[in-house]
Amino acid sequence: MKGDLTLLPAVEAAGAIRDGRLMSEALVAAYLKRIDETEGTIKAWAHLDPDEALAQAREADRIRKAGHATGALHGVPVGLKDIIDTAHMPTERGTPIFKGRTPDADARMVERLYDAGAVIMGKTKTTELGYLHPTDTTNPHDPARTPAGSSSGSAAAVAARHVPLAVGTQTGGSVIRPASFCGTFGFKPTRGVISRGGVLRTSVSLDQIGVFANTLEDIALLTDALGCYDQRDPTSFARPRPAMLDGARAEPPAGPDIAWFDLPFYDRLDPETAAGLEQVIEALGDRVERFPAAPQLAGLTDVHKTIYDYEIAGNIALIEADYGAPLSPEMTDAIKRGRAITKDQYEDAMAVKESANAFFEKHFHDFDAILAPSATGEALPLTAGSTGDAIYCTIWTLAGLPCLSLPLLVGENGLPIGVQLIGSVEKDDRLMRTAAWMLRALAEEGE
Amino acid sequence: MKGDLTLLPAVEAAGAIRDGRLMSEALVAAYLKRIDETEGTIKAWAHLDPDEALAQAREADRIRKAGHATGALHGVPVGLKDIIDTAHMPTERGTPIFKGRTPDADARMVERLYDAGAVIMGKTKTTELGYLHPTDTTNPHDPARTPAGSSSGSAAAVAARHVPLAVGTQTGGSVIRPASFCGTFGFKPTRGVISRGGVLRTSVSLDQIGVFANTLEDIALLTDALGCYDQRDPTSFARPRPAMLDGARAEPPAGPDIAWFDLPFYDRLDPETAAGLEQVIEALGDRVERFPAAPQLAGLTDVHKTIYDYEIAGNIALIEADYGAPLSPEMTDAIKRGRAITKDQYEDAMAVKESANAFFEKHFHDFDAILAPSATGEALPLTAGSTGDAIYCTIWTLAGLPCLSLPLLVGENGLPIGVQLIGSVEKDDRLMRTAAWMLRALAEEGE
Repeated sequence: MKGDLTLLPAVEAAGAIRDGRLMSEALVAAYLKRIDETEGTIKAWAHLDPDEALAQAREADRIRKAGHATGALHGVPVGLKDIIDTAHMPTERGTPIFKGRTPDADARMVERLYDAGAVIMGKTKTTELGYLHPTDTTNPHDPARTPAGSSSGSAAAVAARHVPLAVGTQTGGSVIRPASFCGTFGFKPTRGVISRGGVLRTSVSLDQIGVFANTLEDIALLTDALGCYDQRDPTSFARPRPAMLDGARAEPPAGPDIAWFDLPFYDRLDPETAAGLEQVIEALGDRVERFPAAPQLAGLTDVHKTIYDYEIAGNIALIEADYGAPLSPEMTDAIKRGRAITKDQYEDAMAVKESANAFFEKHFHDFDAILAPSATGEALPLTAGSTGDAIYCTIWTLAGLPCLSLPLLVGENGLPIGVQLIGSVEKDDRLMRTAAWMLRALAEEGE
Repeated sequence: MKGDLTLLPAVEAAGAIRDGRLMSEALVAAYLKRIDETEGTIKAWAHLDPDEALAQAREADRIRKAGHATGALHGVPVGLKDIIDTAHMPTERGTPIFKGRTPDADARMVERLYDAGAVIMGKTKTTELGYLHPTDTTNPHDPARTPAGSSSGSAAAVAARHVPLAVGTQTGGSVIRPASFCGTFGFKPTRGVISRGGVLRTSVSLDQIGVFANTLEDIALLTDALGCYDQRDPTSFARPRPAMLDGARAEPPAGPDIAWFDLPFYDRLDPETAAGLEQVIEALGDRVERFPAAPQLAGLTDVHKTIYDYEIAGNIALIEADYGAPLSPEMTDAIKRGRAITKDQYEDAMAVKESANAFFEKHFHDFDAILAPSATGEALPLTAGSTGDAIYCTIWTLAGLPCLSLPLLVGENGLPIGVQLIGSVEKDDRLMRTAAWMLRALAEEGE
C-alpha cells in the first residue's frame, strides 16, 4: 500500500493485513519510524523495543501467510499504559519504586489482544501510580504543554501517530481529559466491560479501562477486542458486552435525543470552550434539550473525591509498606486526606454513588446521550505542573457510565478541545451510534 | 415459535431469542420437559437444578428486553462435563471422592459462556475422573448400551435433546467415540483452542476440550464461543483462533482432497462399519486418496498410552495422597502401569509425539482432511462393562489435530456410527468447510 501508513485507520489496516494487501511488518516499521523521529520531544514511551515489535509483526505476517486464523486487530500495533501488566515487557507504573519490574503474568486484556492478533508495541508513560504526579510526556500539538494524565503516554502516542490504538485507565478523568488535550478520540466504556485483572489497583470502586484512537470506528474495534467477563474483577459482569463496532456503524432509527445539564461547575470552562460547546448545541438544534442541574448532581464530585481518596490511601499504603516508597507530594497528600476519612463517611459516599446510578438510568429512558465538556479548555502549559482538571469526568466515572470524547473544537491557541458524550450503562453501542450520527450531523452542518 | 423447540438448532434458537421471536425461558422449559420425561432412563446429569436454569433463562430474556447486549449463545442452554469447574454448581468429577465439591471459581470456558449469554443448564455425568470407569448413563438410542465415555453425559444429553449443546473433554477418544455411539456431531478442536483452565487435569500433554451438538453449525457456534487464549494453560496459544462458524458456512474453492490411511488396527472394525466406510469412500469418488499406513503411524498408539499412563499416574496420585481415595480397578491399574514407566521412556514417547506433528503437517500440504472411523462400530452393551475402544482417536489426539465425528452410518442393530474427519493443526476452519462439503456431497449422492 502507498502513502503514509500511519494515517491509515486501524480498521482499514487490519483489513488490509488480513487480505494480504499490507504486511504488518511494513505497518509497524512505519510507526517505528515516526516514533524515532518524534519521541525525543514527545516522550510517550516507558518501554519500547523496536526489534521485539517487528518480531511480533513478522509473526503476524507468518500466521496469515500460513493460512492460519487472523484476528480483528491482526498485525496492528497497540500501546499499553504502563500500569497494565505484561509478562514480556517491564511494567514500571510511573514510579522509581517499580523500576525494572517485569510481572509474571499478562493482564487479562493482554490475553485478549493476543487473541485478536495485535502487536503489543510497548508500554506508554503514566503519571506516578496512575495518579496526579506528571510524567515528562509532552503534548504532540505543543511540546510546552501537558498531554494531561494519568494516561499521558497513551494519548500522546495516538495523537503523534506512534500507534493507531492505545489503552489507558480512568479513575477520575484519565482517558477523556488526555483525549481532549491531545485531540484524539477517547472512550471509557461502561464499568466492567474490560477486565482490570493485572492492572494496578488504585480504587476498586472507580478504576476503569479506556482506549484512545484517531477514529470512532477504531475506538470501537479496540474495545470490542478487549472486552470480556473476568470473575476475578469484582466490577466485571457475567453478561454479553455491547457490540461497539456494530454500534458505530449503525443508523439511529430517528434523530437521537441528547441532554445537556447546566452544572454549576461549568463556570470553570474557559470562554472559547464554552462558546464552542454552544455552537455544537446550536448546530444540533432541537435534538438537544437543556436541563438545570439536579441538586444531587453537583454533590457527586465530592462523593467521587471521598471514595477515591479513601481507597487510594488504602492501596498505596500497601505499596508504601512493602517498598518504603518515595512518593510524590500529590500522592502523600491523597493518602493523608484518605486516612482522615472515616469508614462512615466512606460508606455514605458509596450509598450516594448507588443512588446516582438510578438517577441517570431514569434520564436515559428519554435520552440517548448526555452532552458535556471533556475538559475545561485547551491543554495547560507544562509550567502549571498539573495534568489539568478532571471535574467534567468524575461524575460519569463515579456512575460507571460509558464516556466518549470527540475531538471537535479548537481553542484560542489552536489546540484541540474535546466534546464529551455520555451514555447509559451497558448501552455503549447506542452511545457509539449516537456519536457517529453526531459526527455526520456536524460535518454536514459545517459544509 | 411453534413445534418442538428441542428440535431447533442452537444457531436458530439463539437468533430467534436475540430477535425476540423466542423466549429463552420457553426454550429452556422445553428442554427441561424432555429431561423430566427421559432422564430416569438416560441418567445424563450429575447436577441439574431446573429452577436455577429457568432463572438464568429469565435473566437472558430480561437483558434482551432491556435493550442490553446479547451474545452468540444468548439464552441457549449448554451442558458441561462434570470435570469442568463451576462456582455456582457442584463439580464432582464422577467420583465419590469429590461428592459435594463446589469450586471457588469458574473454569475459563465458563467465563466465555457467560460472555456469550449462554444458560449453564447443569453438569453432565463423567466416568471416574474422566478416565475409564463407567457412569450409569445409558445410550439414548438403546438403554441397554453404553453412551461411551468419558464424556458420557454430555454426549447422551445432546443425543436425547436434553440440551442442544454440551462440552466434554478428550484425552484419548472421549469426545469422538461418545459422539459416534450416541449419533451426535462431536468436535475436538486443535489442542489449545479452548482453555483447560479450571478443568480436572489428567494428562497435561493430552487433555483437550471438545463439544457435542446435533448440527455442524452448532458445533462451530459453540467452539467459537468457548475459544480463547489463556496463559495459565500451557497448551493454549497466543494467537487468533480459527473462525469455526465462518468455516462451516464457507464453500471450498474446489472439491477438497481427502486422505485415507490403511492403519493396521483397522482390522478391529466391525464388518458393518467397515462396509459403511467403504460406501462413504466410494460416494466421494476421486476426492479420496488411499495410502498404506506409514510405519510410524501404527506405533503412535503405544506412544499415546505411555504418555497417558505416565501423566495420569502422577496426577491421580496427588488426589490419592490428598483424599485417600477409593479408586476403581481401571484407575489403580493405570497408576500401576504409569509408575512402571521410566522417565526415559516417557521422554522418548514425548519426542515421538513431536515428530508425529511434523509427519501430519507434511501430509496436510496436499490434503484438506484425513478420513477415518470414529469407533470400531455400534455402542457396546452395558454388560460389557466398557465404554468402548478409543483406538481410532488416540493418534490424532496425540498430535493435537482437530477431529470431527459426523453421524453418517447406521449399524446392524440400527444404532448410529460416526465417521471421523481429521484436519490440520489450527486449520479447524478448513476442516469445518470440508465437513460441510462432505455432508452436502453425501446428501446429494443419497438422493
